[in-house]
Amino acid sequence: MYRFANGAAWIGGELVPVAEARIPVTDWALTHSDVVYDVVPVWDGAFFRLDDHLARFRASMEAWRLAPPEGPEVIRAALHAVVAASGLRAAYVAMVAARGQPLVPGERDPRRCANHFYAWCVPYVHVFGADAAARGVRLHIAEGVRRIPPDSVDPRAKNYHWGDFTRGLFEAKDAGADSVVLLDHAGNLTEGPGFNVFAVIGGRLVTPAEGCLEGITRATLLELAAAEGIDTETRALPRSELAEAQEMLACTSGGGPVPVTHLDGHVFANGAEGPVTARLRAAYWARMAEADWRTPVAYPSAAPAS
Amino acid sequence: MYRFANGAAWIGGELVPVAEARIPVTDWALTHSDVVYDVVPVWDGAFFRLDDHLARFRASMEAWRLAPPEGPEVIRAALHAVVAASGLRAAYVAMVAARGQPLVPGERDPRRCANHFYAWCVPYVHVFGADAAARGVRLHIAEGVRRIPPDSVDPRAKNYHWGDFTRGLFEAKDAGADSVVLLDHAGNLTEGPGFNVFAVIGGRLVTPAEGCLEGITRATLLELAAAEGIDTETRALPRSELAEAQEMLACTSGGGPVPVTHLDGHVFANGAEGPVTARLRAAYWARMAEADWRTPVAYPSAAPAS
Repeated sequence: MYRFANGAAWIGGELVPVAEARIPVTDWALTHSDVVYDVVPVWDGAFFRLDDHLARFRASMEAWRLAPPEGPEVIRAALHAVVAASGLRAAYVAMVAARGQPLVPGERDPRRCANHFYAWCVPYVHVFGADAAARGVRLHIAEGVRRIPPDSVDPRAKNYHWGDFTRGLFEAKDAGADSVVLLDHAGNLTEGPGFNVFAVIGGRLVTPAEGCLEGITRATLLELAAAEGIDTETRALPRSELAEAQEMLACTSGGGPVPVTHLDGHVFANGAEGPVTARLRAAYWARMAEADWRTPVAYPSAAPAS
Repeated sequence: MYRFANGAAWIGGELVPVAEARIPVTDWALTHSDVVYDVVPVWDGAFFRLDDHLARFRASMEAWRLAPPEGPEVIRAALHAVVAASGLRAAYVAMVAARGQPLVPGERDPRRCANHFYAWCVPYVHVFGADAAARGVRLHIAEGVRRIPPDSVDPRAKNYHWGDFTRGLFEAKDAGADSVVLLDHAGNLTEGPGFNVFAVIGGRLVTPAEGCLEGITRATLLELAAAEGIDTETRALPRSELAEAQEMLACTSGGGPVPVTHLDGHVFANGAEGPVTARLRAAYWARMAEADWRTPVAYPSAAPAS
């Protein structure tokens, strides 16, 4: 099999198969989860909203005071390089900024560490499985865990602090659900592991304003809804309000919008995809094909253009 | 230089120099901070309270539903092996249980991952520097960040979710302090990055009950205080009460108890070590030398005993 077929990584200035990309067990990215990242999808040979993902990655780095030596052009080139090496036409592409290790061994000053950047890609990931749109997703609201609050770790800087999600996922899987949504300490919905959520209430599309990542797929859906003439509200969404919702959906760059048909005992739209979700899903996949939002991957040519 | 002089690791069943111990960038230990650990000190050629550290490590793994294939005896042997390989007589020895990667690529079920264990050691770490006991430590209470609450990620299971600590450390370092203490959302003290705190108030030794790791050095100090006839209280410790404190101290298995001489504008014991801290520090280092609490490292003999 082609050496990079399962994905490729750019790390320490080298291209390697993704399975060979490793970091030291003493890197603060691991031992302090001192690391931010972003994930941009590649679909049909092009990045989708690449500049938006790069801008959010830069904002995450700034929020965490991470400053790897690699500048924007090196980062952009690395993303192209990993996808090109893999040959993948649909990929999940991660860019990561890590604290690294102290310049003086034993010192514990996050200002004085060897920050570093790396990137990797794997075949496109459908967070809920490739058939989620057809069958609908079953979500569970965690009872035993609350989302880490923004004044402890701000979810708007995309990070690897998933301990709350993992606790919630165990609870959800044990309950037979596909995944979990966490509440904040006030009882409002926040997000799930790797996805944002929306509810359709009285014909309006409502999504939590705070306590969650400002997802780029979430932004795309808000833009598409406006274009479709669907009113949107970005505000606190109390759990209690879901009893009035006609539809619920989850969204992620790993699969786009998908219908949530079940939330614990509650069934939305008779267990099928509702009409608003269906419109948004169609609009999303149409937008994924629009040239304005796409950056073709710089795959190597078989022969130079003449 | 001797290949293991900077420390050794046991990973994937092999002994390697610590700098060569690495994990994949796609391991959930990194990408979800889905990992628990413990650190046991080696002092003068012996582990201190090894069974207590192993018991807490096991409790952390159970709380996170991590079950690496390595049983207690393999873990114990790995800890001896890394220290023996390094030849270090004073070391910081980490044991780590990681979620690993999904058994089915792309699946997102934490129940179905290849959990794994590894261990590593480096020369003994004084968290506050080797001269902290002599000069005293300057701490800062973070204004801009609160400790992750236990109903999001429980600090009693020792974990790598340090984003709140790192934010606090930046604030502390920028303010000229050595390190930081975080408050919980009710305004009570919790802990700092890698250490517990105590205050001496009206002759009693007070330490936060909740929102912090149940440190083994903290437990040692509570036991020693009782033996010394010092009353102890494990309870909520509001920030406001520190104005009445005569002494403050920090403690960690990386350096034992150390006096906190400054907390932002407040000076304890005229900027020197107070009498209660001095007694506890002397008692701690005496206990470190007592055979009952020590497990000699199984260093290789130069020649077999005859």
